[in-house]
Amino acid sequence: MLKTLITPHPLPFLKSLIRWSILLTPLALVVGTVCALFLWALKVATLTRFAHPWLLYGLPLAGVAMALLYFWWGGRAASGNNLILEEIESPTVGVPLRMAPMVFLATVVSHLFGASVGREGTAIQMGGSLASGFARLFRLDNRQTRIMLISGISAGFGAVFGTPVAGAVFGLEVLTLGRLTYTALLPGAFASILADWTCRQWESWLHVHHTAYHMGYGAAMLAGNALFQADLWLLAKIALASVAFGLASWAFSEGLRHGTVLVSRVCPVPWLRPALGGTATIALVWLVGSPDYLGLGVISPNPGGASIVDFFGPQHYPWSWFLKLVFTLVALTTGFKGGEVTPLFFIGSGLGNALAPWLGVPVDLLAGIGFVAVFAGAANTPLACTIMAVELFGGANLVYYATGCFIAYLVSGPTGIYLSQRVETPKI
Amino acid sequence: MLKTLITPHPLPFLKSLIRWSILLTPLALVVGTVCALFLWALKVATLTRFAHPWLLYGLPLAGVAMALLYFWWGGRAASGNNLILEEIESPTVGVPLRMAPMVFLATVVSHLFGASVGREGTAIQMGGSLASGFARLFRLDNRQTRIMLISGISAGFGAVFGTPVAGAVFGLEVLTLGRLTYTALLPGAFASILADWTCRQWESWLHVHHTAYHMGYGAAMLAGNALFQADLWLLAKIALASVAFGLASWAFSEGLRHGTVLVSRVCPVPWLRPALGGTATIALVWLVGSPDYLGLGVISPNPGGASIVDFFGPQHYPWSWFLKLVFTLVALTTGFKGGEVTPLFFIGSGLGNALAPWLGVPVDLLAGIGFVAVFAGAANTPLACTIMAVELFGGANLVYYATGCFIAYLVSGPTGIYLSQRVETPKI
Repeated sequence: MLKTLITPHPLPFLKSLIRWSILLTPLALVVGTVCALFLWALKVATLTRFAHPWLLYGLPLAGVAMALLYFWWGGRAASGNNLILEEIESPTVGVPLRMAPMVFLATVVSHLFGASVGREGTAIQMGGSLASGFARLFRLDNRQTRIMLISGISAGFGAVFGTPVAGAVFGLEVLTLGRLTYTALLPGAFASILADWTCRQWESWLHVHHTAYHMGYGAAMLAGNALFQADLWLLAKIALASVAFGLASWAFSEGLRHGTVLVSRVCPVPWLRPALGGTATIALVWLVGSPDYLGLGVISPNPGGASIVDFFGPQHYPWSWFLKLVFTLVALTTGFKGGEVTPLFFIGSGLGNALAPWLGVPVDLLAGIGFVAVFAGAANTPLACTIMAVELFGGANLVYYATGCFIAYLVSGPTGIYLSQRVETPKI
Repeated sequence: MLKTLITPHPLPFLKSLIRWSILLTPLALVVGTVCALFLWALKVATLTRFAHPWLLYGLPLAGVAMALLYFWWGGRAASGNNLILEEIESPTVGVPLRMAPMVFLATVVSHLFGASVGREGTAIQMGGSLASGFARLFRLDNRQTRIMLISGISAGFGAVFGTPVAGAVFGLEVLTLGRLTYTALLPGAFASILADWTCRQWESWLHVHHTAYHMGYGAAMLAGNALFQADLWLLAKIALASVAFGLASWAFSEGLRHGTVLVSRVCPVPWLRPALGGTATIALVWLVGSPDYLGLGVISPNPGGASIVDFFGPQHYPWSWFLKLVFTLVALTTGFKGGEVTPLFFIGSGLGNALAPWLGVPVDLLAGIGFVAVFAGAANTPLACTIMAVELFGGANLVYYATGCFIAYLVSGPTGIYLSQRVETPKI
């Protein structure tokens, strides 16, 4: 009786807790520091491009140079995010360490010359390749290596966006569609929280700060300490907008998939493709008459221009979301390095801004919902995106964020932007 | 080319969205209304007991009466939460509809006479049995019945605690340990949000309100619109406290399991067991000299008494959490109906209150973390509990809530309070 009373006892679980805290501390410190340097380099690249708009004309050449770099020295690193997902699914020789510096350099070059790409791919790849390096250093077995890799993804994502809890959930949620396995729940959270903390320690030294988005809606409720009460009419309008968000995710994923096939047919030489994309981007800037759709798009070089921050304000941008979709598909299908997520933030918050006056929804609320929902639909990560909204905008509108992310997840179709994401549970 | 460009198209996903919205609306309206009536009945029962403390002496008899009711008419309904989890795992003839009124009545009787039980079990069983009824009415197939049952759990949980997003995640997370499958992500959220909304519509009619807990910590940060920055030293202290929360979850689950076996050996007649538990409860009240550990414990009959609301304030309660653990194990192992969750809130926030001055952590913060963490560890639902904290206390301290819930989840051992929860991914 006594034996059954004390077993299963919690000691092995405590040991696991301490062991992983020790294993993950160096990874988190390194990933956090590298992400701080990356954010600093992105800021310098973006401001340099704002100051010297002619840099755009170098985009085709810069793209080809980076593609050649990958062509000659990249090896397996060229597979990017997909390689990391595959190594977690079934570990082989690991992720090459050179992936980290290469994707860092290539992404900064993308942004210096104005390709419309993001940064989460870079953060994930840096986190994943560093994690793989530590796993080899510590001689971890396959199961432990998987936990290390997931923690690397979480750390990179959490640090680069300043959203540690979303990072922890993202690392688990992105692996398989329709299922979240808790293999690395606490390790991922530990790595993500510590990497984010480390990244923020560099803020004052490097003068980089995460962007604060202004979510006014719901703030009054919080100040009054009132309990949340859903407004059904508002909820119905948000649900309708969220269907549009999901369709935008679907258009993005499908555009990316089919566009990549199309580009590879038109231009069979991989390292020449960025020349095509760079030239098309220059032509698009001429056509549109604005550089607002280049780079990250978090801020605009021109006052009153289209940018994520501006979408939360009173000005109306009916088509910015669509232009960003086109610019980003051109950049990503032709092989520019970076990521999909910040452009997805732009497309989502821009679409929210576009729909807000037509639907009669407060613009900051719908921009914030779009921000996370289009990403949730494209990456199939509805829970991470719901939590991300709380970390970026506060908890007051949680029900509306969840509604946006869950509906976009359903409507965005059977797959997403990560081709190596396994489909475990079909959405319908 | 055109065909591949338009397939897989999002139309079937939109149809699924509309179909489930129609199927789930009556369920959500009924569950929300029933939960409002239940909260009202609980309030009346609790205030009646406060006004007439002698009702406690009726506890053994009242418990036997309810046990006889289940013995004669309960049938499969006696299995409670476990029957619902089993029906989701592999649907048979469904959950009997009588489960809803029986568990409603038995729980209110428990609270009227002072058994230390909760209310989430009741909400889940009412939601599940009503969902099963609607599934039979609509002649749904097995897959659809599962979605309906999960939505019923989510609706009941979301409405009874006033936490709709946590309800949606709880319905998915509680089924299997270590894995969250998105079978009913959007249906669960729809049912939970609408049921919660319905329940709140009755508030002014029935004069029942969800309790507002005062979380002062972090509120200043929100008011200043500053971004969250984790305090590592505070985080370390919270991690340490969370190990204690996890051990409390473990003690609760193990106590429940072994206590039930022990009681069934001591008293082989099922319907006689509540007489044992009722008598023991009376003896415990004499011993402790306080009725604070009876019933829900959200508020206390005496000013300055031990209650969940008081644990967020300045008074120190070093042992209240332990007394509630004992009272609740006595009630639950001897067969009183209700649930585990509100006592777990009491134990968690009480333990947070006890540890706060020793660790030098703000008491409201640690009470709030304990509130959700002990429940997360006992039910193995770390994500739902993290989200619940945001819904009850606001988003400012999300990193600390996640830390608490994730650590308690790990430390609480290989199983939990729900015996029919399948273990899919071991924690270590």
